[in-house]
Amino acid sequence: MRLGVLTGGGDCPGLNAAIRSVVRHGNGERGCTLVGFRDGWRGVLEGHADELTSDDVRGILPRGGTILGTSGTQPHRVDGGVAKVREALEVHRLEGFIVIGGEGTIGEAARLDVPVIGIPKTIDNDIRGTDASIGFQTAAQIATDLIDRLYSTAESHNRVMVCEVMGRHAGWIGYTAGVATGADVIVVPEHPFDVDLACRRIREVHALHRPFSIVVVSEGALPVPGSMPIPDYALDENGYPRLGGVGAVVAEEIGRRTGFETRVTVLGHVQRGGSPLAFDRVLATRLGRTAVDEALARRWGSVIGIHGAKIDPTPIAEVQGTKTLPPELWRIPEVLCE
Amino acid sequence: MRLGVLTGGGDCPGLNAAIRSVVRHGNGERGCTLVGFRDGWRGVLEGHADELTSDDVRGILPRGGTILGTSGTQPHRVDGGVAKVREALEVHRLEGFIVIGGEGTIGEAARLDVPVIGIPKTIDNDIRGTDASIGFQTAAQIATDLIDRLYSTAESHNRVMVCEVMGRHAGWIGYTAGVATGADVIVVPEHPFDVDLACRRIREVHALHRPFSIVVVSEGALPVPGSMPIPDYALDENGYPRLGGVGAVVAEEIGRRTGFETRVTVLGHVQRGGSPLAFDRVLATRLGRTAVDEALARRWGSVIGIHGAKIDPTPIAEVQGTKTLPPELWRIPEVLCE
Amino acid sequence: MRLGVLTGGGDCPGLNAAIRSVVRHGNGERGCTLVGFRDGWRGVLEGHADELTSDDVRGILPRGGTILGTSGTQPHRVDGGVAKVREALEVHRLEGFIVIGGEGTIGEAARLDVPVIGIPKTIDNDIRGTDASIGFQTAAQIATDLIDRLYSTAESHNRVMVCEVMGRHAGWIGYTAGVATGADVIVVPEHPFDVDLACRRIREVHALHRPFSIVVVSEGALPVPGSMPIPDYALDENGYPRLGGVGAVVAEEIGRRTGFETRVTVLGHVQRGGSPLAFDRVLATRLGRTAVDEALARRWGSVIGIHGAKIDPTPIAEVQGTKTLPPELWRIPEVLCE
Amino acid sequence: MRLGVLTGGGDCPGLNAAIRSVVRHGNGERGCTLVGFRDGWRGVLEGHADELTSDDVRGILPRGGTILGTSGTQPHRVDGGVAKVREALEVHRLEGFIVIGGEGTIGEAARLDVPVIGIPKTIDNDIRGTDASIGFQTAAQIATDLIDRLYSTAESHNRVMVCEVMGRHAGWIGYTAGVATGADVIVVPEHPFDVDLACRRIREVHALHRPFSIVVVSEGALPVPGSMPIPDYALDENGYPRLGGVGAVVAEEIGRRTGFETRVTVLGHVQRGGSPLAFDRVLATRLGRTAVDEALARRWGSVIGIHGAKIDPTPIAEVQGTKTLPPELWRIPEVLCE
Repeated sequence: MRLGVLTGGGDCPGLNAAIRSVVRHGNGERGCTLVGFRDGWRGVLEGHADELTSDDVRGILPRGGTILGTSGTQPHRVDGGVAKVREALEVHRLEGFIVIGGEGTIGEAARLDVPVIGIPKTIDNDIRGTDASIGFQTAAQIATDLIDRLYSTAESHNRVMVCEVMGRHAGWIGYTAGVATGADVIVVPEHPFDVDLACRRIREVHALHRPFSIVVVSEGALPVPGSMPIPDYALDENGYPRLGGVGAVVAEEIGRRTGFETRVTVLGHVQRGGSPLAFDRVLATRLGRTAVDEALARRWGSVIGIHGAKIDPTPIAEVQGTKTLPPELWRIPEVLCE
Repeated sequence: MRLGVLTGGGDCPGLNAAIRSVVRHGNGERGCTLVGFRDGWRGVLEGHADELTSDDVRGILPRGGTILGTSGTQPHRVDGGVAKVREALEVHRLEGFIVIGGEGTIGEAARLDVPVIGIPKTIDNDIRGTDASIGFQTAAQIATDLIDRLYSTAESHNRVMVCEVMGRHAGWIGYTAGVATGADVIVVPEHPFDVDLACRRIREVHALHRPFSIVVVSEGALPVPGSMPIPDYALDENGYPRLGGVGAVVAEEIGRRTGFETRVTVLGHVQRGGSPLAFDRVLATRLGRTAVDEALARRWGSVIGIHGAKIDPTPIAEVQGTKTLPPELWRIPEVLCE
Repeated sequence: MRLGVLTGGGDCPGLNAAIRSVVRHGNGERGCTLVGFRDGWRGVLEGHADELTSDDVRGILPRGGTILGTSGTQPHRVDGGVAKVREALEVHRLEGFIVIGGEGTIGEAARLDVPVIGIPKTIDNDIRGTDASIGFQTAAQIATDLIDRLYSTAESHNRVMVCEVMGRHAGWIGYTAGVATGADVIVVPEHPFDVDLACRRIREVHALHRPFSIVVVSEGALPVPGSMPIPDYALDENGYPRLGGVGAVVAEEIGRRTGFETRVTVLGHVQRGGSPLAFDRVLATRLGRTAVDEALARRWGSVIGIHGAKIDPTPIAEVQGTKTLPPELWRIPEVLCE
Repeated sequence: MRLGVLTGGGDCPGLNAAIRSVVRHGNGERGCTLVGFRDGWRGVLEGHADELTSDDVRGILPRGGTILGTSGTQPHRVDGGVAKVREALEVHRLEGFIVIGGEGTIGEAARLDVPVIGIPKTIDNDIRGTDASIGFQTAAQIATDLIDRLYSTAESHNRVMVCEVMGRHAGWIGYTAGVATGADVIVVPEHPFDVDLACRRIREVHALHRPFSIVVVSEGALPVPGSMPIPDYALDENGYPRLGGVGAVVAEEIGRRTGFETRVTVLGHVQRGGSPLAFDRVLATRLGRTAVDEALARRWGSVIGIHGAKIDPTPIAEVQGTKTLPPELWRIPEVLCE
């Protein structure tokens, strides 16, 4: 069997581990031919493709990023894109694609109506059909390590340290890094942020417990409407928060209201780079292996996910929409559900 | 409600996070009184106990080890031990214990027939009733980081590097660190080790792919009976492998048979110390919170575990026995199931 | 002998190691009494002081921050400040102070004309009288680890990644992290930044070598006057660059001129927090020990520094002014001295 | 100019950074031709050589090990070896070699009487002519990180944890990691180890301060003659301690004498692998650059070292012998100089 493989959307730790697994299992153990496309769907449209063997993926397991490159290109938005994808299937005599990507990249395959198996990756962890997506645990760990570092400087200077982490539509990184570091306030997109409550809690912490505090803010979180101003520069053209926008605004508002010295740190792109944790390497390896086996069985149209200890496929149709934090996670005092 | 809390068995990263969660949720949010016992069940027998408040657990979340100390003491093996445990319940007016421990420590509670909620911890991950026990992901990550380091020295010197990791009855650390680092051979207790196959594979790797290789050996693994000698010094008085025993023997045998320069590294106790990963901190925090809620509901006699994204109790009776790697995990070429 | 000890200025990794060394060597081995003042010179003015014994400093060696707290308070700018410092010497019967701080904090002592021994700390490494100040190697390492992470995301997306690191008056962190990560362009305060050269070099890298690049910008660097606009919001009220200001402006200008997708990351406060490297722990320990010995010998008025393998004092008068990168370091192609 | 480059002796973090610097500066900036030999002097004897350009060394800066491979081959001990080295110079039309190695590898060049510039590397830091050799700070940091981890397990179980680190003829790693972690006892080759004093100190620590302790033992350290038995199996055929030998023996003796539960961990090969610290990357880069400049100036026969902030050459004749810890470093209570 001949199969295409590509990575799409934002990069994250573990993509290379997934590519390696698909190629080693597909080519090395099952004798398939794997054709790797450059830069996501763009490589399919533009014909940038190379056959990949086990030797091509040697040594990439612990490395961040993707040797295939990535892009957000969506063929159905490109003139003649859909036809070109079908053409690529024929030219390379592929039975289908293994697509390592987020909702956009995988959903695209469904729209194109070509045979596809999806492997879910996104540091935001907001893809349905899996307990965890590739890259999430590593990103949450990077954020945790860095917020740990902020504690000592918060403590030495009696400051409120506000730290903005990634999480545009879901607060998985913010929740995980916030709980893992014992943050006093955690702001997630799932629950509107009440700056009054936050300031009250911060004052209480400083008065009763220790004269400094840590606030973790998800990139895409917004306050209770009307409760505090969000300046235009903090939002993009669609009214969504910009990277760094909400963190800075929240820090300023807390500083203004409490009178405590407040500083903001925006973790940004470091959260998506570098060597993946063992968790993501093993997850990527297991998902890649099962993706190949599903393709060999010609059970197309699913996303491979982990559920508890098991690796299982879910039909793409059932994984539409964003997987947000369930209420049993965010209904904790730190998320200000007082 | 008044509750006892203790940590028992070998220490691991995340114990402090669990203690903190139990105390903050129990005492800080629910108004219980928490009595911490020193050094596991030994503190119950000897009356070493102190009330714990949120202030006592401040700052311990990211720290390894356990502020309560730990031991392997089993009251039912101590003269008058069972009576003393009941006495301790009365003296401290406790309705029950929250026990953070492995199978031995939690099982003890069942044997004692006192009200108990168990929180599973062990770096070996061999407790049933949970997808993951506290400490496992961190231990597997430490092993992964260190085996990553062995690659460069293996490569520079064209060596076979054998690395022994923890895992007495189950190969979770060996499997995880082995897969995560792309080890050529992985030896786990679940599947007898065939040294002939291993040497054949190592020769093949050196001949065809790269002139060095990595072998990950679980502490408790044993070869196919009769296939290679295990000297007495590698075994303890019960015939079980000693820490470092199997690793050294396997390395020597591979070196002798293949003629390749071979070195052994025994990771040992560093796998159980130091700051826990975000994964274990969040797991410990969630398990601790639910343990308190179950105690408050007086639903005694269970172990709290994570299953997929959910935290749920399982009756202690149903978690007897060792949770070994399921065959779908170890049936991979690296574990030499050729 | 009775001695005061305090930490002043911005916090950094290794302050606790220095405090511990001063207290253990002074109190534990030499029998001095050490009085610790809270929050730098502010604690001297306000009378916040406690005696410190070896037991008070147990376990703080690997921890970031300072158990004494810190501030930028300068007594000579406070009404009656100088008199209060002298009063504190008398009240606590101190022969002098051991001051762990940067130029501002130590220089203050000279201005106050009280007996003082200085221990140099600053992540910026811009204090004279020592090859390295406490905190610098750790900060440079944190920056290096994070820029390493940016490589994979730069590579996956074919981007120019601009990373702003700390360094207000000197480019030690920028130079070290830039060279250590193989950055294509390094911008330091010692050498005006020529955006034309930078863009030319970036285009060359993308054309000839690899389709992505890394630019490291020191917080306090400025472009060749007139070569590119620096908007007001990037500068503070004194016309100095704000944290994050120059990085953002440089990224925008490079993106505009080259047409390459460009992103900025501002590392910020994470560079000054968390556990110090072995280098800084040993340096702090050695400096602390020698500071006590110098105080016991009543050789006041010096800063203790490391020179090669030796620890030696230098008169405070000789360490005035900023220690910038020497030209033999910054005259490398990456700093755009073409 | 045409130059050979090779790496010899044990591998360490930073070798690749040094190779990269030599090639980029020599080939990329100065227009030399660099010929890389495989596996140290062995590649010179056997004719394994390839020209290296900047593109060949792209991306290797942060990676451990050496892309050239290494060996301990000494041409003057090989039949006709010296002639073959001279032949290689002619065949490849080289003016000389840049040799990245320890005393053995660099000293070999002197013995061969060929033009050579040495770049000092060894995790043991025992080469003269430089304050620090490539790899040392990284190795000491790895040991420090791992001993930090041992603290929590020592504390949880009230144990004496003995940790053996590398250091055959000099105690730089043991001193650095021991001081950096606050070890109670540090054993180095420079000062015979008095087990009586050690046990007295350990008992004192457990009695007065905290009920656990940490002992750091250098691989090559030996006790005061006659003070405790060293079994034959702990020594190699030359009577030198084997890797792991002294650590195990010391742990057993301490356990036997004090009655405290004692465990040993042998860090072994993980200390020499993996990504180098920024310190070693910058050091290697600076040394490589100066080595090329010295070769271009035809100033042969020196070792390039760092002295304070300066990079300078020292004649090879002046760097004979082992650089041990100076007494002002090891005359501290932890090294049992009571």
